[in-house]
Amino acid sequence: MSAKPVVYLGDTTLNTAASYLGGVMTQDGIDFIYVPSGRRVKPAVVAPERKLFIVSDFSATHFPQPLQRRVVSQVKRGAGLLMIGGWESFRGSEGCWQGTPIGDVLPVVIGKADDRVNCDQPTLLAATSDHPIVDGLPWSDRAPTIGGFNRFRPRPRSRVLLEAMLFQARRAGNGMTFSLQRKAPILVIGKHGQGRTAALATDVAPHWVGGLVDWGDRRVAAQVPHGEAIEVGEYYAAFFSRLVRWTAALDEL
Amino acid sequence: MSAKPVVYLGDTTLNTAASYLGGVMTQDGIDFIYVPSGRRVKPAVVAPERKLFIVSDFSATHFPQPLQRRVVSQVKRGAGLLMIGGWESFRGSEGCWQGTPIGDVLPVVIGKADDRVNCDQPTLLAATSDHPIVDGLPWSDRAPTIGGFNRFRPRPRSRVLLEAMLFQARRAGNGMTFSLQRKAPILVIGKHGQGRTAALATDVAPHWVGGLVDWGDRRVAAQVPHGEAIEVGEYYAAFFSRLVRWTAALDEL
Repeated sequence: MSAKPVVYLGDTTLNTAASYLGGVMTQDGIDFIYVPSGRRVKPAVVAPERKLFIVSDFSATHFPQPLQRRVVSQVKRGAGLLMIGGWESFRGSEGCWQGTPIGDVLPVVIGKADDRVNCDQPTLLAATSDHPIVDGLPWSDRAPTIGGFNRFRPRPRSRVLLEAMLFQARRAGNGMTFSLQRKAPILVIGKHGQGRTAALATDVAPHWVGGLVDWGDRRVAAQVPHGEAIEVGEYYAAFFSRLVRWTAALDEL
Repeated sequence: MSAKPVVYLGDTTLNTAASYLGGVMTQDGIDFIYVPSGRRVKPAVVAPERKLFIVSDFSATHFPQPLQRRVVSQVKRGAGLLMIGGWESFRGSEGCWQGTPIGDVLPVVIGKADDRVNCDQPTLLAATSDHPIVDGLPWSDRAPTIGGFNRFRPRPRSRVLLEAMLFQARRAGNGMTFSLQRKAPILVIGKHGQGRTAALATDVAPHWVGGLVDWGDRRVAAQVPHGEAIEVGEYYAAFFSRLVRWTAALDEL
């Protein structure tokens, strides 16, 4: 019996936040093992050779550093590593990935202090570079919103594919005026040895995912086994499928 | 022993979506009994005289019509009735409140078909009328976003306090252009007999609550007993406190 290609850690449980990425991967035929946010990572998770490790709202305090180093070795040899944002990702309120073996091979520098940015005003994604993960999706004509993100800094030789544009919205007569306040990197990709690495600053699930979860007119229904059913926008599903497949180097399939 | 003044039905459980309104009411000293979304309403819930009934993501199919009629009688005599939006509110995908005793006394007309509007693009709230629920909050200078809402029509003699402005965002050079597509009523208030009624089309919890949950710079931490802790924006907490207090006619306190 061969090991499942993808390890997915975090996003609470398959009945809550993890139902989103779990549903998307299930519908895309990507087989994975899952570890909920409250559990500790065990050696069996990192022992077999994997194609991709996904860490999303999973605190570093639940991932023993010797086991993190085995992930890093796998990445050097060609496995992918993807961290997705949230209150327990990157630094977060309780992510605490700064200065850890996994945090150190991500394509971004993680801050030492709480890096959460909660957006009560319009925050939109814009593509900043051509790349198979983002090409062909309607970033320009239908820029999706997000609800928040972790603040991080791209490392040298990484590539920023998406950035957030934060606007202030003010009432003006019967309309609104929008003024750009600042920009922030949202999707950054890189390499570590032979492996692909990616850091997505926003969340794959509510509430930080914002309008991105409903991106597009066509709705997609999906459900991970033993998890909650989801109904999301077509471009949301397409974007996360591509992100997972590219980072796992399954993108040629 | 006197009955608790507020009945709160729905939003899944106190450990999930109901942790938001549950947390806000707890922190505001508003005592309530709670019924999770999956449960059936029992006679003991509607027997004592209450000050307010809140129905939020709770399907009409779990609220027997004879018991709904007892709520309507209480409203006629002066109790408040508040429905808050979601996939199981108003018509929703599974709310099915159209043509029910409770649905018929709300200040809005509920549609017969799925009324859900999921917003992947910027959707902002604007105050349309002065009223104690909305006065003094920074709607104009810091218009908050929402992520979705139920489409409904205000009844004659009701009052619209908030509306949503739906924009299309398109990339334009280094910036974005925003064009107003349409508006929709979001908060509508009315009366039934002696009781105050209110319909809020967006959700109190993710994902439809959008950026509204983080509205303001100051963070508020709260926790309902036996529920999940929340951390929200100050104006979000203030807005929902006022909405509950006004509809319950506790606003003079």
